[in-house]
Amino acid sequence: MNKNSSNIMALGPNTPNKRETVCIFGTGDFGRALGHKLIQSGYPVVYGSRSTQISNLIPKDAEVLGHAEAAQKAAIIIIAVQRQHYNFLTPLAEVLRGKVLVDISNNLKLNQYPESNAEYLSQLLPGSKVVKAFNTVSAWALQSGTLDASRQVFVCGDDVEAKQMVMNIVRALGLTPLDKGSLLAAQEIENYPLQLFPMWKFPIFLSFGLAAFFFLYCLALDVIYTYIYENNNFSFFIAITIPNRVCPVMALILFALVYLPGIFAAIIQLYRGTKYRRFPDWLDKWMLCRKQLGLVALAFASLHVVFTLVTPLRAFASWRTSKGIVSQALNNKTEPLDHTNAWLSDSYLALGILGYFLFVLLGITSLPSVSNNVNWREFRFVQSKLGYLALILCTAHTLVYGGKWFLSPSAYKWYLPDIYILSLIVPCALLVVKFVLIFPCVDKPLTQIRQGWERNPKYSE
Amino acid sequence: MNKNSSNIMALGPNTPNKRETVCIFGTGDFGRALGHKLIQSGYPVVYGSRSTQISNLIPKDAEVLGHAEAAQKAAIIIIAVQRQHYNFLTPLAEVLRGKVLVDISNNLKLNQYPESNAEYLSQLLPGSKVVKAFNTVSAWALQSGTLDASRQVFVCGDDVEAKQMVMNIVRALGLTPLDKGSLLAAQEIENYPLQLFPMWKFPIFLSFGLAAFFFLYCLALDVIYTYIYENNNFSFFIAITIPNRVCPVMALILFALVYLPGIFAAIIQLYRGTKYRRFPDWLDKWMLCRKQLGLVALAFASLHVVFTLVTPLRAFASWRTSKGIVSQALNNKTEPLDHTNAWLSDSYLALGILGYFLFVLLGITSLPSVSNNVNWREFRFVQSKLGYLALILCTAHTLVYGGKWFLSPSAYKWYLPDIYILSLIVPCALLVVKFVLIFPCVDKPLTQIRQGWERNPKYSE
Amino acid sequence: MNKNSSNIMALGPNTPNKRETVCIFGTGDFGRALGHKLIQSGYPVVYGSRSTQISNLIPKDAEVLGHAEAAQKAAIIIIAVQRQHYNFLTPLAEVLRGKVLVDISNNLKLNQYPESNAEYLSQLLPGSKVVKAFNTVSAWALQSGTLDASRQVFVCGDDVEAKQMVMNIVRALGLTPLDKGSLLAAQEIENYPLQLFPMWKFPIFLSFGLAAFFFLYCLALDVIYTYIYENNNFSFFIAITIPNRVCPVMALILFALVYLPGIFAAIIQLYRGTKYRRFPDWLDKWMLCRKQLGLVALAFASLHVVFTLVTPLRAFASWRTSKGIVSQALNNKTEPLDHTNAWLSDSYLALGILGYFLFVLLGITSLPSVSNNVNWREFRFVQSKLGYLALILCTAHTLVYGGKWFLSPSAYKWYLPDIYILSLIVPCALLVVKFVLIFPCVDKPLTQIRQGWERNPKYSE
Repeated sequence: MNKNSSNIMALGPNTPNKRETVCIFGTGDFGRALGHKLIQSGYPVVYGSRSTQISNLIPKDAEVLGHAEAAQKAAIIIIAVQRQHYNFLTPLAEVLRGKVLVDISNNLKLNQYPESNAEYLSQLLPGSKVVKAFNTVSAWALQSGTLDASRQVFVCGDDVEAKQMVMNIVRALGLTPLDKGSLLAAQEIENYPLQLFPMWKFPIFLSFGLAAFFFLYCLALDVIYTYIYENNNFSFFIAITIPNRVCPVMALILFALVYLPGIFAAIIQLYRGTKYRRFPDWLDKWMLCRKQLGLVALAFASLHVVFTLVTPLRAFASWRTSKGIVSQALNNKTEPLDHTNAWLSDSYLALGILGYFLFVLLGITSLPSVSNNVNWREFRFVQSKLGYLALILCTAHTLVYGGKWFLSPSAYKWYLPDIYILSLIVPCALLVVKFVLIFPCVDKPLTQIRQGWERNPKYSE
Repeated sequence: MNKNSSNIMALGPNTPNKRETVCIFGTGDFGRALGHKLIQSGYPVVYGSRSTQISNLIPKDAEVLGHAEAAQKAAIIIIAVQRQHYNFLTPLAEVLRGKVLVDISNNLKLNQYPESNAEYLSQLLPGSKVVKAFNTVSAWALQSGTLDASRQVFVCGDDVEAKQMVMNIVRALGLTPLDKGSLLAAQEIENYPLQLFPMWKFPIFLSFGLAAFFFLYCLALDVIYTYIYENNNFSFFIAITIPNRVCPVMALILFALVYLPGIFAAIIQLYRGTKYRRFPDWLDKWMLCRKQLGLVALAFASLHVVFTLVTPLRAFASWRTSKGIVSQALNNKTEPLDHTNAWLSDSYLALGILGYFLFVLLGITSLPSVSNNVNWREFRFVQSKLGYLALILCTAHTLVYGGKWFLSPSAYKWYLPDIYILSLIVPCALLVVKFVLIFPCVDKPLTQIRQGWERNPKYSE
Repeated sequence: MNKNSSNIMALGPNTPNKRETVCIFGTGDFGRALGHKLIQSGYPVVYGSRSTQISNLIPKDAEVLGHAEAAQKAAIIIIAVQRQHYNFLTPLAEVLRGKVLVDISNNLKLNQYPESNAEYLSQLLPGSKVVKAFNTVSAWALQSGTLDASRQVFVCGDDVEAKQMVMNIVRALGLTPLDKGSLLAAQEIENYPLQLFPMWKFPIFLSFGLAAFFFLYCLALDVIYTYIYENNNFSFFIAITIPNRVCPVMALILFALVYLPGIFAAIIQLYRGTKYRRFPDWLDKWMLCRKQLGLVALAFASLHVVFTLVTPLRAFASWRTSKGIVSQALNNKTEPLDHTNAWLSDSYLALGILGYFLFVLLGITSLPSVSNNVNWREFRFVQSKLGYLALILCTAHTLVYGGKWFLSPSAYKWYLPDIYILSLIVPCALLVVKFVLIFPCVDKPLTQIRQGWERNPKYSE
């Protein structure tokens, strides 16, 4: 600044660099971290505290006063105390009248109280303007400056100007405010940091359960059966061979489960003849986790691809290859090319590649930044048309792969079918029903129902 | 709430939970769906309708009145009727004066009317504040709650406060409003849901056409020629071998087509000596779809990678391998390592891997969320510097791959070159011209022209 | 419009389509480009210039006047001149009083002046409302219409209404305004377009240096040693074999370097007994580039995967395979399956696949649009829990891969260990220390310290 003294003159007393004082009630960990950060960003900070003796934990440029005196010094008061102590604020109601109170509190459980902390604060002090903010930011992240996770700060409040003042502070701290509307949104904002992938729980538990079952099934048929009846120790199949049987099966079944609820919904609507009655609860929940189911299926499909591509590098594979070739050489003959086999092998590989390619495309489209740039018509086209095409290709891939073994009795160890046969049940049934639903005589009433027509209006009362 | 009765007392009469009444004109499908959703979110809803007899399709907590009475009850009126019936509103002009009218209509075709529906509404009722919103949301999605696609609601309007009121409702419904500015944006917003990947049409049709041509070309040379002259039935090449010839060719050509318009633009600017005249229309359109061309090229390159990696798993490949080895064994000799061959094979694989790696990097950078976090200088660096490097590596990959066959006459079946030779024409020509353009004697005037200098100013009038 | 003449009537004189005049000071390249674009978007444009003779470079629909007359015609004046000429504006202070001045200037270097250009302008003309905008958009992009890079326009300013007016213009030009708060943000906005991946510099230089070192190390051991002592020319190893040794080593080391600073931070905090003292500067910087280190590691890991999968396609690999099989055939015996070898080969492949899978998951989570949809708890879960699991799997992959050669003296050429042994030092040390830190007797005080507890409060003064 000293290079340019004339400009400093022009700046005058009310320089725009001077920021308004912020008051923080509470000298706990988050209050101190936020104070540090505010001082770094050029805000004068004053703490309101019961004991005004200066603790050395408090940033040294901050003032510490009693609650009432501190509040008088600032237009914005950040309430960094826990909800159960909020009632100490009621005697201060007069001092806090018209001030902006920022509620930054979090709870320990989802929906712990009937109303959100911010709404409770607003009821205690109806004369103040309560804004909810900062609860999604951790003290540790503020302190260390390593804001790796989301820089988004959800802000809500009933007073637009108060909200704007808080959002300016958020921006000044290098964070991104996101206006979530009125104080009613506070409940949602308070629940947000307590969640751990709530939408993923069901798909992940389901797939772990199914995968464990199929793993044991394969273990029995491929390792134990072989050991007992053929006296071959193929225990090393546990590492790659069996996972590479389970992954495609899981991928196909979960992929079919993405489209199954849509089929059920269509059947229910056709049966009821109206769209104005709610689906059963299980169907609603199932429909809401379709994206997650699809992404888990994509993960299994990707593992299947890598496990398959790695095959030629395995010691077992090179041993099997060389065994075959050596026996040919020792028998002094060269086997001719089996054209049927070449066709089958190439087709199921090609079908799998194309199906996986479309599946990855679906996955990319479900990235938030991509799906936000896509309109409803485009999203439907990708998720429905391309999705069914991918499912058809993947099912065909499995059918062609297993083709020749289906009816061969030697393939049934202990009279149990191989798991790829089990994996075909859901997708094949789904595709048959979907094929029926496409027929005009079924599709037309369904479309009408979805546009609001009702077969028997009295049902919908 | 009943756990905490003292708080309810404190809430008083004008609780913030009480939301303002919303009026909906029209009891069609979208009007009903929106009404349902509004009631769920705590808004009192009143329908304005010609016939006020209560239909059982209308949400049962909603009131149904005549248009004028309904409008008087609310500050916001959602017009859920089609544009051709808007003139029934003109007699209501006095009642609607100063009210916020939300136009949610869509058209059946792009640019169906000279002005947007919202602007038309605003002209009909100049005393009301028209806001365009909700047209990108489908009734079905609102009804079923499965808002898989974008939750963005584009909002535009000339009155800032009216827009803010509508945006608050949007947020309350769990959607994300996006302010698109004044009512002029309504045309664009109304066109938005009618589009089906408009930018992708040309690249996809072009690549389908080219791919079909190359597929038939390969089919003739690899299957039909072999069948006629060598009496070998390689029809199974259709599944993997031929696609794996077409994909890399398509990827390389399309990748070159991404950078070709930039070369044309530079030549045109050099020739004209100014940047202030518009490019020909075809060049403008071409430049605008470069990102899409590049992503289609990346898709073909990815398919090529997977098709190639899958090679050792093919029955044909293992047959060919074992045939070669068995013949060596039967001839009782071991072939020594061909160093030239080892060098060639490893180099073209390495070049391909590095080129593909950079290509994927380009693809990731073009994800909306990534490119939004990158400034102009960084974007130019990635798309131009890294992009050309990737193109050079991919071209070198193809050159080294074909290296030894280029001049061998036996490679030319029916006097036709193999398609990888065809694929090299565009990228090689492009790279040569680009190399010339980098020379200072060419680059310097070009840079000057791009900074606004003109060789012959009178041309630009 | 002519289809609908009655509407045009209704439009009247003050049609909303009529946009306010915008004045541009300066007829340089950017001023002209912006003027063109504004006229295209329906804004009347008037240029303020010293010489009012009409240059043919200026868009022909624009007016050109002296500065004072031009400024009087508009409420918004875009200052398209360089900072060093700003003082020509001081005599115009009276004309510009109350007007919105848009500062679009950029500097040539980061932090070139003590205060930002926009703040300087605001100091020169305290009566005007200065808004910073458009500096991130290039004239070339505006002119050509190919806004491939970010459409985001950062806007900041102290006057909310002035900012809103500028943001409306930004939207009208088809760009997305992003409110960055008060004029204090101008410094950051002016620095933004000058940056070239500032966070990536250290990770990329570090990895280039390390990779070059490991490449030469491998070259010495694998090519030169073999050439001297075994008289084998394996120079073609440069293309794939050596890169495929360097890439996994780089990936593992860089991956460990992502988690190392966290370990250092924990040790420092335990030693100091407080979290309220700053970490050393090198540690702070290291922590801030962990994401970039991780993504570079992921890039090396991906290259390793592709290089490995490509192995069976190499001429060298097929020569080695056939040599082995032919020698078996000539010796008239078939080697039995080595079960230990099969176990080892399958386990290290499976460990590598799972480790890479989790690594890719981490990479996807660090995409901006994904990490914005994830809360702090979820982000910590992925980056910490899943991250450590991935690191453990990758380390185990390397350990099992090298397993049998560790103690074999023949593996040590020139008494130097193979590079995969070097690569294990950092991750193994890291995992051991992390294991110690998990013990309750260490973890409990650490957690307390991170919650704000201090062992010896007087230290923190």
